[in-house]
Amino acid sequence: MQLKKNLNSVTAFAPASCANVAVGFDILGFAIDAVGDYVSLTLRNDNQIVIEKIESKDELPLDPKKNVVAAVIQKACDELNISQGFSIHLRKSIALSSGMGGSAASAVAAIVAFNQFLLKPLTPADLIRYALYGEEIACGHAHADNVVPCLLGGLTLTRSIDPLDVIQLPVPKCFYVIVHPHLRVETKLARAVIKSELPLKEYVQQSANLASFIVSLYENNISLLQKSLTDVLIEPQRSSLVSGFYEVKAAALKAGALGVSFSGSGPSLFAFAATQQNAIEVGNTMQIAFANEKIASDIYVDQISKNGARIYPAWV
Amino acid sequence: MQLKKNLNSVTAFAPASCANVAVGFDILGFAIDAVGDYVSLTLRNDNQIVIEKIESKDELPLDPKKNVVAAVIQKACDELNISQGFSIHLRKSIALSSGMGGSAASAVAAIVAFNQFLLKPLTPADLIRYALYGEEIACGHAHADNVVPCLLGGLTLTRSIDPLDVIQLPVPKCFYVIVHPHLRVETKLARAVIKSELPLKEYVQQSANLASFIVSLYENNISLLQKSLTDVLIEPQRSSLVSGFYEVKAAALKAGALGVSFSGSGPSLFAFAATQQNAIEVGNTMQIAFANEKIASDIYVDQISKNGARIYPAWV
Repeated sequence: MQLKKNLNSVTAFAPASCANVAVGFDILGFAIDAVGDYVSLTLRNDNQIVIEKIESKDELPLDPKKNVVAAVIQKACDELNISQGFSIHLRKSIALSSGMGGSAASAVAAIVAFNQFLLKPLTPADLIRYALYGEEIACGHAHADNVVPCLLGGLTLTRSIDPLDVIQLPVPKCFYVIVHPHLRVETKLARAVIKSELPLKEYVQQSANLASFIVSLYENNISLLQKSLTDVLIEPQRSSLVSGFYEVKAAALKAGALGVSFSGSGPSLFAFAATQQNAIEVGNTMQIAFANEKIASDIYVDQISKNGARIYPAWV
Repeated sequence: MQLKKNLNSVTAFAPASCANVAVGFDILGFAIDAVGDYVSLTLRNDNQIVIEKIESKDELPLDPKKNVVAAVIQKACDELNISQGFSIHLRKSIALSSGMGGSAASAVAAIVAFNQFLLKPLTPADLIRYALYGEEIACGHAHADNVVPCLLGGLTLTRSIDPLDVIQLPVPKCFYVIVHPHLRVETKLARAVIKSELPLKEYVQQSANLASFIVSLYENNISLLQKSLTDVLIEPQRSSLVSGFYEVKAAALKAGALGVSFSGSGPSLFAFAATQQNAIEVGNTMQIAFANEKIASDIYVDQISKNGARIYPAWV
């Protein structure tokens, strides 16, 4: 595979994302464009993949085999027979183990930046495949419900990973609230608490809500969306991972939220609200409820963005 | 509750229906307008509910407490304080235990005919509630996935039974094939073979297909519908109830069917096909495949009808 000439350095941004969305365990997700990770790749004169700089509140592995960005770039170089070295600069704005798709964002930003160097760019399916490899390095499990909305933007449905089949759903005309309590829930642990068998009765209820959630998007029916956003399967199993979960949720619903549940595997929560003003009220209420549990938190409020990962002209 | 004056006799028709539709166990169903049950109610001079005549290939209970039609009318009279007797004439075209919603059709036809006598008619939600009572008498379980499409027509999603919340979905622009092999599978037995716990992995796959099936209806995307119509959860557990199931299914897919699975709890199968001509070919192929198993069968081919249960001006 040939590289473009006269290109020395590229920066890509990839947004955070909210997976599951209450009713779509492992299949639904939306982009949280208010926060994301930046990866800058610069050509080197050797063929080494070197992590030059990491800006992050959290400690990240510098070993290129364990670092998501380095592992993704190395994998792409190997598979595409590229013997070009890259220096990596990672600016991580998404907190580790926050349930906001941080490892997916780093992996996606890495491959999107890398793609810019290629004379013949990779397809979206290939980009997703490489980013999934990064997820596997980070979490030991290649789930696509963060990678897909992070790359493509909007609200996505992953029908199948192999072969890859993803669908961009209509974006609901409401606002999201993401509240990130300063707790860490390892994705591996959050997956381990989920039972491998589910009761048929709850499956029927959950699948009915999933189907009507999809209907609500196509019919632009906020009242149906509100009724549908109930997770009877996964949320009860994970609620104990976040102290005060039910108190925060109840406070959000009382403040007018259309629905509340975990963002991905938590500890972050997402809520939907009909207006920006109400979304801010809901966010503040949730922050106060977490404060009552002696837990500090960050809030992000916005509309679901149709923008996914993209090239940045320079460091912002 | 008052009755209309000058009305002596009413006949209602209610169509057969195909529940589950591969990916929507207990929540999806569509009307099969090509065949159905007729119920005629005639005023009596006493206050008895009397089964006067049943036309059916199968033996049906004449005890008013066990007969679906009589039980529904009795329940409605009791709840609405109506002390008027009715003579019942039932013409049953849907075979018993065929998986085509026969008991639902009889119950729906009964309450739709009865409703015509009321000065102040019942709401659709009330009609469904009475028909569900009939289902309970017949099957011991008030599932709404036949009653709802039978009453309303089209392709329906039952989000919730209590409180009742039903949605009419866009009808796919394709043809259905229903093949009824001359076997009987009791609904109770077909439910008993379903495990009460389901594997998480298959739940994720099935829910992804359900979501993309709903998308395919709204986007009028036949190729996506085809990919989505795969039941990994329920069908494998019921396949042994119908001898030759996989051979018949394979033959249908080879003949061009977009998807094949059980109609309700079987033994009938449904298939979708892109054109009427192909639907007839698929139906004939399935009939031959059943014949190879020494099983005779009936075929019904049509588009999904938007017509649900309705009043007939007189016996047809």
